[in-house]
Amino acid sequence: MHGRLNVGVIGLGRLGRVYAQDLAQRVPNARLVAVADRQPEVAQSFAAEYGIPKWYASHQDLLAATDVEAVAVITPTSTHKEVVIDAVRAGKAIFCEKPIALSLPDAVRMLDEVKAAGAFLQMGFQRRFDAGYVAAREKIASGVIGDPVVLTSTSRDPFRPPLEFCDPKLSGGLIADMGIHDFDVARMYMGDVKTVHAIGGALAYPEMKTIGDIDNAIINLVFESGALGVVPLSRNAVFGYDIRAEIWGTKGSIQVGYYRQTPILVMTSGGITHDAVPHFMQRFESAYLAQIQDFVNNVSAGGQPAVTAADAVAALRISLAATISSNEGRPVEVAAMGLA
Amino acid sequence: MHGRLNVGVIGLGRLGRVYAQDLAQRVPNARLVAVADRQPEVAQSFAAEYGIPKWYASHQDLLAATDVEAVAVITPTSTHKEVVIDAVRAGKAIFCEKPIALSLPDAVRMLDEVKAAGAFLQMGFQRRFDAGYVAAREKIASGVIGDPVVLTSTSRDPFRPPLEFCDPKLSGGLIADMGIHDFDVARMYMGDVKTVHAIGGALAYPEMKTIGDIDNAIINLVFESGALGVVPLSRNAVFGYDIRAEIWGTKGSIQVGYYRQTPILVMTSGGITHDAVPHFMQRFESAYLAQIQDFVNNVSAGGQPAVTAADAVAALRISLAATISSNEGRPVEVAAMGLA
Amino acid sequence: MHGRLNVGVIGLGRLGRVYAQDLAQRVPNARLVAVADRQPEVAQSFAAEYGIPKWYASHQDLLAATDVEAVAVITPTSTHKEVVIDAVRAGKAIFCEKPIALSLPDAVRMLDEVKAAGAFLQMGFQRRFDAGYVAAREKIASGVIGDPVVLTSTSRDPFRPPLEFCDPKLSGGLIADMGIHDFDVARMYMGDVKTVHAIGGALAYPEMKTIGDIDNAIINLVFESGALGVVPLSRNAVFGYDIRAEIWGTKGSIQVGYYRQTPILVMTSGGITHDAVPHFMQRFESAYLAQIQDFVNNVSAGGQPAVTAADAVAALRISLAATISSNEGRPVEVAAMGLA
Amino acid sequence: MHGRLNVGVIGLGRLGRVYAQDLAQRVPNARLVAVADRQPEVAQSFAAEYGIPKWYASHQDLLAATDVEAVAVITPTSTHKEVVIDAVRAGKAIFCEKPIALSLPDAVRMLDEVKAAGAFLQMGFQRRFDAGYVAAREKIASGVIGDPVVLTSTSRDPFRPPLEFCDPKLSGGLIADMGIHDFDVARMYMGDVKTVHAIGGALAYPEMKTIGDIDNAIINLVFESGALGVVPLSRNAVFGYDIRAEIWGTKGSIQVGYYRQTPILVMTSGGITHDAVPHFMQRFESAYLAQIQDFVNNVSAGGQPAVTAADAVAALRISLAATISSNEGRPVEVAAMGLA
Repeated sequence: MHGRLNVGVIGLGRLGRVYAQDLAQRVPNARLVAVADRQPEVAQSFAAEYGIPKWYASHQDLLAATDVEAVAVITPTSTHKEVVIDAVRAGKAIFCEKPIALSLPDAVRMLDEVKAAGAFLQMGFQRRFDAGYVAAREKIASGVIGDPVVLTSTSRDPFRPPLEFCDPKLSGGLIADMGIHDFDVARMYMGDVKTVHAIGGALAYPEMKTIGDIDNAIINLVFESGALGVVPLSRNAVFGYDIRAEIWGTKGSIQVGYYRQTPILVMTSGGITHDAVPHFMQRFESAYLAQIQDFVNNVSAGGQPAVTAADAVAALRISLAATISSNEGRPVEVAAMGLA
Repeated sequence: MHGRLNVGVIGLGRLGRVYAQDLAQRVPNARLVAVADRQPEVAQSFAAEYGIPKWYASHQDLLAATDVEAVAVITPTSTHKEVVIDAVRAGKAIFCEKPIALSLPDAVRMLDEVKAAGAFLQMGFQRRFDAGYVAAREKIASGVIGDPVVLTSTSRDPFRPPLEFCDPKLSGGLIADMGIHDFDVARMYMGDVKTVHAIGGALAYPEMKTIGDIDNAIINLVFESGALGVVPLSRNAVFGYDIRAEIWGTKGSIQVGYYRQTPILVMTSGGITHDAVPHFMQRFESAYLAQIQDFVNNVSAGGQPAVTAADAVAALRISLAATISSNEGRPVEVAAMGLA
Repeated sequence: MHGRLNVGVIGLGRLGRVYAQDLAQRVPNARLVAVADRQPEVAQSFAAEYGIPKWYASHQDLLAATDVEAVAVITPTSTHKEVVIDAVRAGKAIFCEKPIALSLPDAVRMLDEVKAAGAFLQMGFQRRFDAGYVAAREKIASGVIGDPVVLTSTSRDPFRPPLEFCDPKLSGGLIADMGIHDFDVARMYMGDVKTVHAIGGALAYPEMKTIGDIDNAIINLVFESGALGVVPLSRNAVFGYDIRAEIWGTKGSIQVGYYRQTPILVMTSGGITHDAVPHFMQRFESAYLAQIQDFVNNVSAGGQPAVTAADAVAALRISLAATISSNEGRPVEVAAMGLA
Repeated sequence: MHGRLNVGVIGLGRLGRVYAQDLAQRVPNARLVAVADRQPEVAQSFAAEYGIPKWYASHQDLLAATDVEAVAVITPTSTHKEVVIDAVRAGKAIFCEKPIALSLPDAVRMLDEVKAAGAFLQMGFQRRFDAGYVAAREKIASGVIGDPVVLTSTSRDPFRPPLEFCDPKLSGGLIADMGIHDFDVARMYMGDVKTVHAIGGALAYPEMKTIGDIDNAIINLVFESGALGVVPLSRNAVFGYDIRAEIWGTKGSIQVGYYRQTPILVMTSGGITHDAVPHFMQRFESAYLAQIQDFVNNVSAGGQPAVTAADAVAALRISLAATISSNEGRPVEVAAMGLA
């Protein structure tokens, strides 16, 4: 192991803290040298707890620190454009949590800045670093299932977010907010998407209608190759966190995912019971670590981003097309979203 | 148990033989008194093997036998209209294997005849008699999953039929031929379907294109209630027979189905492996028996059909709408199929 | 299929009725022509319900019927010696449910009579006809797990029998009553047993102590080959019927068994739950049918018994040795049981 | 979080490195300040890689470091007595990996020193910190399975150690080396063991006979309470690492353990396959971390050891009794091992 990469984390919300803790304690070739959060007391107390040398209340101040070589941007999506572009201009290597932006013009603007500057931007789609999704990719590459022809990618949360976070103007709505992971998975396994058709409804939480969001959706995908896909999304997986994929091929099929959190089975007269994975942090703890480790490795080695801004734009485009489809009740060509 | 019901079986193809064997040996309150098949030697040898008193080469001759009280019609779909209407006119109680017909006008014509005559016609949709599908129905009724809001019903065959049986003019095509089971399951759990949208392709067997059929499809359903559904269909479940359902509710979820045929697990350096259910006969053997037993019970007790001609017409209408949707690339309102 | 074998069933208890129903309705090359039970009304009503020509209150009368070619003996174990020897002398082919007898001298006496007469006696050990146990045998024979070196065979009932049936003088006690299936399985997969060591106790039902029986036991086996085995037995599998085997080899392992009765999974905030196989009839329904079918086939074809009286004596000897071991707290050589 | 505990690690073999890495990077309230290994270059390079201030070639030198408050002893078992007693005398809080010693006199001597000095010694039995074993304990305490009456604890390694590590004089032999984990699990769930009876053999690796060790064993346990237990051990779980427990109670049962390492399922014409947990490091990575975290917490808080030297002596006594039982072919009273 050579020198360590000096990293700063911008945004210390729930997920930001995870990345920051990983960088502070579990990524051997990184050194977390600075954190920033709009709430100064959050930044200060995190820095104190983990022995981080510097903390800031503004991302600009963190970006001005010359010893910061790379930054992880885990701020609200609506701020991604500003923060990422500032980071590009400050010459930092950038990791940015998905989604890249809420609107396609914003995303394309970011992509253009990254390209023009020759900046390093790696997008966060942690499923790409999960052992199951990785193993599936390897199995597919080895030819064991022949040609993949149908993809199912399922995302179901155990409960809805607070209503204020569901406002489609802020979150993008169910399809963009949750489905973007599945659209990225879809592209990873099957290539680009040509057409989407989505149906949805506020079926479990009628109060979602008051803010114009839905809680369940099913999105059909036709890939450029002619292959098919389906993405079921839900906010009411009340038993736990239900994340699965199935890649269906001409010679076999692969299922990715599991339900059980704790390796015990309780057998009584009431039946045979096990628990479920409660939520994304339990399911993807290792994937988040592997992902930020990969970012650090890539920057340190002068390599390429594992997931690019172009990937992020492509997934965003699908999610926006699917949202329109759901709203208008018709299939939508992804290319018609423009800005290709 | 009182007197036995005298039953005749019309059609001794693969499935017809199953029903006939069940009636001959495993339905205590039935007596299989006659069989008919267009190939006289088939009818004759079956009758000899199972000690059936009478055999015929034409369904009319069987229907003319006065001691035959009830008939099971397991002939090719294209003949259902003629045979069922003849049976209605002969005053027999009728069991008819799905689908009721290939065209909606034919099906409605049959329904009208049945209604006008006050005839007893029970349609065959064996999943309704499978222990798993039945248990799910009971669990839903008990409220354990709250209100069902999303249905998934999957049907995947281990291989395609011979090309000559795939001709959509004869089979109705993949969506009608396979999906009709799922559309019936959908109605059983979720009520009537309002809109369908289907995508499909000949992805595993390019030769399907030569006859105008597809081998994989995904059909989205919007129910009258606003609930959502999805039906994945495939002809290339090369590992076995993949039949599953998931009923997703506001308080929980039920999964129906299983993969393993033989209760052994083989654990070697190559991994931990079990086999799969090979095909529909292994998966639904008990359901076929329970279904024909139910028919005999209902007729004997003067009861009502468990699955009516109206149910069969409704499932057919969905499958025809989905076929149009797949062909034309647009959502289709089921009501627009007419003949409601 | 040629002529049918005329079979009589002696003993119409719970299991006797199962065999009789199978012979009456599900074994095509058998004809159930007579039943006998000490309670004449049981024999009479069964004969009436299933259309059996003859019924008797004594096994001697049934054995005197000249059209009876073969008999299934499903009477209490304490009567096996008398009934089987009478059947041998009457020249019938015999199927006898396990265990062959409660004492070794009785069993050996029966074996001697069968040998001297050249009679056909097939013993009932239905696990040998279960799809899982059969598949395991085939896999082992194919070499997939190398040499088997350790066997686990587990039998656990969901509840204890009524106390009056637990009296070791009648039932042989837990180890003989339940374990004999496992000792037969052990011999099938691993060959003869050299030494046993058993521990046990009345742990779940203290009232068992009043009659001198136990409700849980663990029996260790050392095979003649040097291989090892263990047989856990229990009367308090309160969730259902727990029957499993594991054959552990030098290149892999096979697990036989399953828990789920109904193919549904219920997923709620209380966890992910499925039901269990309730009891032996649900678990082994197909095996009982396959077993009696095999008997009919073997007799009809002039073949050999699939499970011999010598097999039954060997399993009994192990179970008696294990009972002594449990009572006396020491390992017991099976050969020391004498009468080899 | 208050001050950090300054910890030294003695012994940087495979497992020692795991503890050292955890202490260096993943235990927030510890600071790894020193490492020692008999091979100086191992200690030096580890210290360099992880930025550890001090490294030593002898445990005495490390123990002489006044800033070291606590030590983790992960040296070969044969050295435990010396190192632990030295650490007691140096006034350090001690974590010691199992087994405490190879002989009972050594272990009791250590126990006496610890007691006399009032030292803090926590023994390493990582299964006690595994999520599954912990959850089972909580479920049992909650009464969900009633009174536990039978325990099964299984340990099976994927392959044998190099022959030189199997020498019973060094390793204690299969039963002591592997089974001690199971005996500790047994005591945790069921209390003290009264009698053991073991059978074993060199069945998969005949070469084990040349050094006097075995590769498979089954050990029966009778607990002081009268409850029963069985411990199957094997060195030839060629598919992976097979660690399971079953706690069988009067109202239900709990199974602990799982096989699958990667959450994918591959379904082809060859069957439905998943991988297995390869070995103990993959299975217990989290448990090792939780265990050393618990040690640091207990020392820091002035609490009691979670697993005491007395626990370790009790498990050792069972393993020695079982080894004698296996060698001599007779049940052995644990109390007869003396030194209680």
